[in-house]
Amino acid sequence: MNTFGRNLKITTFGESHGAAVGAVIDGCPAGIVLNENDIQSLLDRRRPGTSPLTSARQERDRVEILSGVFEGKTTGTPIAMIVRNEDRQSKDYDALREVFRPGHADFTYQEKYGIRDHRGGGRSSGRETVGRVAAGALALKYLAANGITITGKIIEVHGKSDPGEIENEILAAKNAGDSVGGIVEIVAKGCPPGLGDPVFGKLDALIAGAMMGIGAVKGVGIGDGFAVAGKFGSENNDQMTKDGFSSNHAGGILGGISSGQDIVVRIAVKPTPSIAKTQQTRDIHGNVVDISIRGRHDPCIVPRIVPVAEAMLALVLMDCMLEQEKYRN
Amino acid sequence: MNTFGRNLKITTFGESHGAAVGAVIDGCPAGIVLNENDIQSLLDRRRPGTSPLTSARQERDRVEILSGVFEGKTTGTPIAMIVRNEDRQSKDYDALREVFRPGHADFTYQEKYGIRDHRGGGRSSGRETVGRVAAGALALKYLAANGITITGKIIEVHGKSDPGEIENEILAAKNAGDSVGGIVEIVAKGCPPGLGDPVFGKLDALIAGAMMGIGAVKGVGIGDGFAVAGKFGSENNDQMTKDGFSSNHAGGILGGISSGQDIVVRIAVKPTPSIAKTQQTRDIHGNVVDISIRGRHDPCIVPRIVPVAEAMLALVLMDCMLEQEKYRN
Amino acid sequence: MNTFGRNLKITTFGESHGAAVGAVIDGCPAGIVLNENDIQSLLDRRRPGTSPLTSARQERDRVEILSGVFEGKTTGTPIAMIVRNEDRQSKDYDALREVFRPGHADFTYQEKYGIRDHRGGGRSSGRETVGRVAAGALALKYLAANGITITGKIIEVHGKSDPGEIENEILAAKNAGDSVGGIVEIVAKGCPPGLGDPVFGKLDALIAGAMMGIGAVKGVGIGDGFAVAGKFGSENNDQMTKDGFSSNHAGGILGGISSGQDIVVRIAVKPTPSIAKTQQTRDIHGNVVDISIRGRHDPCIVPRIVPVAEAMLALVLMDCMLEQEKYRN
Amino acid sequence: MNTFGRNLKITTFGESHGAAVGAVIDGCPAGIVLNENDIQSLLDRRRPGTSPLTSARQERDRVEILSGVFEGKTTGTPIAMIVRNEDRQSKDYDALREVFRPGHADFTYQEKYGIRDHRGGGRSSGRETVGRVAAGALALKYLAANGITITGKIIEVHGKSDPGEIENEILAAKNAGDSVGGIVEIVAKGCPPGLGDPVFGKLDALIAGAMMGIGAVKGVGIGDGFAVAGKFGSENNDQMTKDGFSSNHAGGILGGISSGQDIVVRIAVKPTPSIAKTQQTRDIHGNVVDISIRGRHDPCIVPRIVPVAEAMLALVLMDCMLEQEKYRN
Repeated sequence: MNTFGRNLKITTFGESHGAAVGAVIDGCPAGIVLNENDIQSLLDRRRPGTSPLTSARQERDRVEILSGVFEGKTTGTPIAMIVRNEDRQSKDYDALREVFRPGHADFTYQEKYGIRDHRGGGRSSGRETVGRVAAGALALKYLAANGITITGKIIEVHGKSDPGEIENEILAAKNAGDSVGGIVEIVAKGCPPGLGDPVFGKLDALIAGAMMGIGAVKGVGIGDGFAVAGKFGSENNDQMTKDGFSSNHAGGILGGISSGQDIVVRIAVKPTPSIAKTQQTRDIHGNVVDISIRGRHDPCIVPRIVPVAEAMLALVLMDCMLEQEKYRN
Repeated sequence: MNTFGRNLKITTFGESHGAAVGAVIDGCPAGIVLNENDIQSLLDRRRPGTSPLTSARQERDRVEILSGVFEGKTTGTPIAMIVRNEDRQSKDYDALREVFRPGHADFTYQEKYGIRDHRGGGRSSGRETVGRVAAGALALKYLAANGITITGKIIEVHGKSDPGEIENEILAAKNAGDSVGGIVEIVAKGCPPGLGDPVFGKLDALIAGAMMGIGAVKGVGIGDGFAVAGKFGSENNDQMTKDGFSSNHAGGILGGISSGQDIVVRIAVKPTPSIAKTQQTRDIHGNVVDISIRGRHDPCIVPRIVPVAEAMLALVLMDCMLEQEKYRN
Repeated sequence: MNTFGRNLKITTFGESHGAAVGAVIDGCPAGIVLNENDIQSLLDRRRPGTSPLTSARQERDRVEILSGVFEGKTTGTPIAMIVRNEDRQSKDYDALREVFRPGHADFTYQEKYGIRDHRGGGRSSGRETVGRVAAGALALKYLAANGITITGKIIEVHGKSDPGEIENEILAAKNAGDSVGGIVEIVAKGCPPGLGDPVFGKLDALIAGAMMGIGAVKGVGIGDGFAVAGKFGSENNDQMTKDGFSSNHAGGILGGISSGQDIVVRIAVKPTPSIAKTQQTRDIHGNVVDISIRGRHDPCIVPRIVPVAEAMLALVLMDCMLEQEKYRN
Repeated sequence: MNTFGRNLKITTFGESHGAAVGAVIDGCPAGIVLNENDIQSLLDRRRPGTSPLTSARQERDRVEILSGVFEGKTTGTPIAMIVRNEDRQSKDYDALREVFRPGHADFTYQEKYGIRDHRGGGRSSGRETVGRVAAGALALKYLAANGITITGKIIEVHGKSDPGEIENEILAAKNAGDSVGGIVEIVAKGCPPGLGDPVFGKLDALIAGAMMGIGAVKGVGIGDGFAVAGKFGSENNDQMTKDGFSSNHAGGILGGISSGQDIVVRIAVKPTPSIAKTQQTRDIHGNVVDISIRGRHDPCIVPRIVPVAEAMLALVLMDCMLEQEKYRN
């Protein structure tokens, strides 16, 4: 479904080459100071066309708030926000109307719906994340007012962790008509203990679902993540001291509930599937064809996923903060 | 929350040393042949006390179906199932009433609720998974009737993948008063294309949330998982041939929707936090104390997580199958 | 579905002649003092077999709490409660296995599910309300601690409002092999203003849905209910004074949100459909047959619906109280 | 909350004098032919400014579809629709910034949120129903394609049922600076048996919640509604014949499930609270003040509620149709 969250509910809508993308936020407390600039600054971080490393698509991505804000404050009613799609070179996609791009959602959308908006990936485009980031901007603001900050960063791209080497890897892939993947880490500082619900609503489960719901993410780890598989219990347990914990292998979550330590999440991002290199695929008639995807594509989506992952973690945490309010006696 | 699923809704309840554990399944189609033996056989696979590698706790774990089945068939009404807790040596836990075991949910439950059933971990005990496995047995039966099979296996324990070496690692850890973690892989074969919902309800997101909602799981990967971070797009894309796909790096999911290939999931399981080795911790009064956890604990939870992970994947897939029915025109 | 509520979530299960009926309550705050006696006393009010006016079915209806309570207090985990079905004279229903009783759910269950537990109405039996009443007892306790009391009463039965006349009407109907309907009023006193959510979650909408979800209820009115249709705005508006409102035509709800006045709800209860008088109906093979329903049936369900309606209003209000907590800044 | 439905999920947003009102529809099957004209025609029926009996507010109410439709067909992705607010004479409402209008949501919004958009009632304005009607137009189209039609009509206004008398009553009230209420009936023909879910999701419960969620509705009856209270079971039961049922006192719903007969719903609509007659009220400072509400108000909201009630019933039924699809084996 297109709605995320239990208390703060975000519904996103829009296709890459439709009239607009956007989000409706329901369940936001009244009285939060909010204007379009608060949202615009985070949107600008995910915007394409700002460096040689990203897609050349030019979008001003100007957000308009349609409802839910009165005289500069949220009113407790749904906040609808839209961003018009401006640079829609839909003609570029005519060749793809009947072909399934490898690694893309084209084939599975066709199988599921029997119809798809092929222009720029339609709903499966990364452009859908505009709505998430707009909503996330509100959540980040709410969290900051509660002493919680969220920061994302690139850990590695194609095996490299040095910023200069990362840039080289991306440009080399671009020049070769190829693409590369990487790992992003998002850390939340200042979280109170008690967030998250045991069993199916564990904080790790909510975060994992949120992250895996971002296109291109194929792995999620909390704290030490997959490294726990190779450890002894005596190494992995975070012992307690007078001041708190002596380590943070658990990534700030014990039994599905935040412990008050930093929440640490890592996600694995696959290489952009749109590449110029020739690949074999099928069309909707079952014919096997060659494909070389030209156009304005990111050779590495990792940098642009950082603000999206921050937004998703912010939405999870704000949702849990509201949930937690219910059980304060 | 304690409910899982959108169409097939499972609510589990029960504490390790309470009267019973169980589950209520709502949304199950009518007319499915079901009896207690169908459920018992999967429950027996997760039962403790069956090998030197697992906890010595003896539970017959006899399931009783209280409702929703009439003359051997489901009726479309809620199926309630309970398993009485029999071998409750609650006295063993008296020493832990006021102490937070490292790596356990003791501290965070206390912070969240201000009260906790300390006996055997209460609700955070692995015993909660009895309800999931009971529900999963129904889902596995439904899926099998639709040509879908799910198989889980241990990939590695503490860095070893050979069964004999795995057994040695576990026994060595047990003898050292320690514990070890590992990796489990679950594969679903025979899934039709089209399952899963784009955006927040991506099949990968649903699976990741389901797996991370199992206690002790700290990482989830779909298909190649974290390995995608080091690859080129040209390596990672699954090209299409006349007969399907030439590889399955995506783990059977494209754009959040099943492609018809095998669905491949890997999870990282942390070492059991309950160990005999002395650790430092705190009690509820803030005193720093030493703790050595004696009692009947698994030195490695990995083998017993396999049926739980199978059950969770089965619940996700049956839920998606029912969801999919809505959109067949 | 079989789950009610957004924050306090009640799932009921069980058939009239199955092993047990019951409920699982999820989302209850920790720390509430609760034992089986708290629940038993409300259950006893809805129990049959206590007067010549009600069904002769004898059920002790002893509730057992299976989980979620530790040392006399709720722990924040799911509270599962069951009541075993004892006086199951299922043989009485053999004649009804293939016949659709007029005014009952027999025909529609058969159409919907293709299978039904015909014994005593199965899931559509009034016995399902045991789970609601058990959950409602907890809600009533929570509300009382917050200064809110709920009282239901019979307003009229078959057009009569005097208690003696009501008793006569019921006995006369019973003797004639017939049944009668009536009207019940439920009032909540002490509700704070602010409960309920505008638009689809209006407090009136939540209450109307809750009441109409009780079997046999065919009409719901808030405050003046249907009488508003014949009034002028100047008569119907509740004007404000220094101390509050000068009248309560609105039944304590304005714009879907509680105003702090008494919440007043009236429900119309249909005559029990099970009557001894001969009626025409069909069997599952399409044959038209005569039917005279013998057995232990209430000639008027109105008195026994009172505690059920109180329970449902309590569940709605506790749910809204918890919802409200989220938005306190 | 601002979302309605379980399978077809409608989220509405917007205030009377904000930038726009609208809705996002999630869960709509792919492949339905839909364009803006389909929606416009139903919107035009609820539009003000079309007769001396309705508000003089002039709104063209032009709907724009922002997403979810591609080449004239739904794609299975969210359908976002907006209607810009054009005739916003917000100045008219300056006098009401600090005063609570009797019978309005002003007081309760202030109590709940501590802030409110006072202009034209903000979110509590009847203008919110634009989003519902837009979504309902889609549902009506879907239902019509499945052989189901929905028709609403005025049964009575201020005790009168003749159209001419109704018009006189409304004009007389208007001239007196007053307003009147009435009763609306909505009938769905062609519904298959089997819609609705027993217990809390009974079709009557879903309909009652949907209707009571429309502003100004204070009573709901299914079939004979409150009249059942005065009847014998032998009068109220709908007996079965070879061809179906011999009567329809139940309004097409038995045990919460549709029987295949016409679904008959009646709702009681209160007189518009905005009247010119002087009333006593309070302001936000606690002062008692006199108020006479001038401006462009409907003296009777009953005619304009008809398409809204039709839309809500359509949304309920389409939702149940989709739900039903899940359980077809």
